[in-house]
Amino acid sequence: MYIARVIGTVVSTSKQDSLIGMKFLVIERLDEHLQRIGESEIAVDSVGAGTGEMVIVCKGSAARTVLGGQVPVDTSIVGIIDTVEVG
Amino acid sequence: MYIARVIGTVVSTSKQDSLIGMKFLVIERLDEHLQRIGESEIAVDSVGAGTGEMVIVCKGSAARTVLGGQVPVDTSIVGIIDTVEVG
Amino acid sequence: MYIARVIGTVVSTSKQDSLIGMKFLVIERLDEHLQRIGESEIAVDSVGAGTGEMVIVCKGSAARTVLGGQVPVDTSIVGIIDTVEVG
Amino acid sequence: MYIARVIGTVVSTSKQDSLIGMKFLVIERLDEHLQRIGESEIAVDSVGAGTGEMVIVCKGSAARTVLGGQVPVDTSIVGIIDTVEVG
Amino acid sequence: MYIARVIGTVVSTSKQDSLIGMKFLVIERLDEHLQRIGESEIAVDSVGAGTGEMVIVCKGSAARTVLGGQVPVDTSIVGIIDTVEVG
Repeated sequence: MYIARVIGTVVSTSKQDSLIGMKFLVIERLDEHLQRIGESEIAVDSVGAGTGEMVIVCKGSAARTVLGGQVPVDTSIVGIIDTVEVG
Repeated sequence: MYIARVIGTVVSTSKQDSLIGMKFLVIERLDEHLQRIGESEIAVDSVGAGTGEMVIVCKGSAARTVLGGQVPVDTSIVGIIDTVEVG
Repeated sequence: MYIARVIGTVVSTSKQDSLIGMKFLVIERLDEHLQRIGESEIAVDSVGAGTGEMVIVCKGSAARTVLGGQVPVDTSIVGIIDTVEVG
Repeated sequence: MYIARVIGTVVSTSKQDSLIGMKFLVIERLDEHLQRIGESEIAVDSVGAGTGEMVIVCKGSAARTVLGGQVPVDTSIVGIIDTVEVG
Repeated sequence: MYIARVIGTVVSTSKQDSLIGMKFLVIERLDEHLQRIGESEIAVDSVGAGTGEMVIVCKGSAARTVLGGQVPVDTSIVGIIDTVEVG
C-alpha cells in the first residue's frame, strides 16, 4: 500500500460488464514527504475520493476485496488520508 | 491498472491448450500525458481492442477473472479508453 | 519479504469499514546493511511495532493472512527484528 | 506476460518434492524489437521450449495453473512464439 | 523465480505465531553469470539451505504452498542449485 494523490479520471465506454459503474481515477504515487515518485496508475475508487485528495492505494488481489468479488481490478483506493506524520 | 496503447501482436502456434483462441497483443504503457513509459508487455484482449487503441490494462490474478477461470494469463485488456482527463 | 524501519503513521478517517481499528504505518525498506533503499510504503501492523523499530514486511495476498481474511491490505508487518547477521 | 528467450538451464538436486521432474530454464526478457531488457529469471517450462527459442512468459498465481496445482512456481513458459509483429 | 545466494540470517523474537520455527534468511539475487543484481530480501527456507549456497527463490502466493497454508510469507527458498548453464 502506498500514499497517492488523485490527479484525473479515465473515461471508458467499451469495457468489461463487471466494470460498469466504477470510477476510474488517475493517481500519482507520493513518498512520505508527499513528493511524486514513479509513474501514474489507474485505480478504482471505493471511498468517494476526488481529484486532489490524498489516498491510501491497495494493489493485487486485495484490491478487489472491496468491489464485490471477481472483477478485473488490481488497484483500488481504500481510504482518504487526513495526515501523514513522519519524523 | 494502467493506461497502455496496443502496438502489435504475438503469434504462437505451440502453446497451452487453454490459450487457444485468445488474442495476444503487444502493449506499451503510457503515463497520464500518454507518453510511453517502461517496457512493452503481452496482454490478452477481452474487449475487442485493436492496434493503436488506448486501453485499460489489468495485472495479476484479476486479469484472468475475465477469461473464464484457471488460465495462464497474468495481463489482460479490460477496457478501451475514450479520454484521459488530468488537471 | 524484506527488512524495513517504521518511520511514521498515516491517519485516515474516511476509509473502508474493514480497515477500522488497523494501524497504518509508514515504512522505509532497508538493505542488509540497514541502509534505506527504494521508496516508502504504507503497512498495516500486526505485531505491535512502533516508530524506529526494524521489522519484517510481507507483501501480497500473504499480507492479509494475519488480518482475519478479506481485507484490502497488501502490505503487513509480521515480525520485529532483533538482529540481522550477514557475513 | 512478456516476450523472453530461453538462454540456459538450472540444475537442482535438492528441492521441494513437488518440483521433481520439472524443467527449470533461464530466460531473458525481450522488448518488442527482441532486444534484451531487465534481468534474467528462472521459469518452469510447460510447452517443450528449448534454448534459443522465443517464448511467452506468465507470472504470479497464473503460472501454476498449468502445473497441476499447489506447486511453488511463480514463473512459467506457456507458449512458443512464432512471430512478433509491431507496426 | 530467480537465482539467489544466501548471505545471512534475520532473528525475530516478537513475530506472528504462525512464523515460529521458520528460518529467515537474507538473500541476494544473482543474474545468470552469478553476479549480484538488485537489493537483498528475506526468504523463508524450505529445503535446508545455508549461508553461501545458491538457491531457487519463489515469490508471491506460490511461496507459501510449501509452508503448510495460510502463513504471512511471500518469499521462499524451494531448491538448492547445483549448476547454472548458459550459453
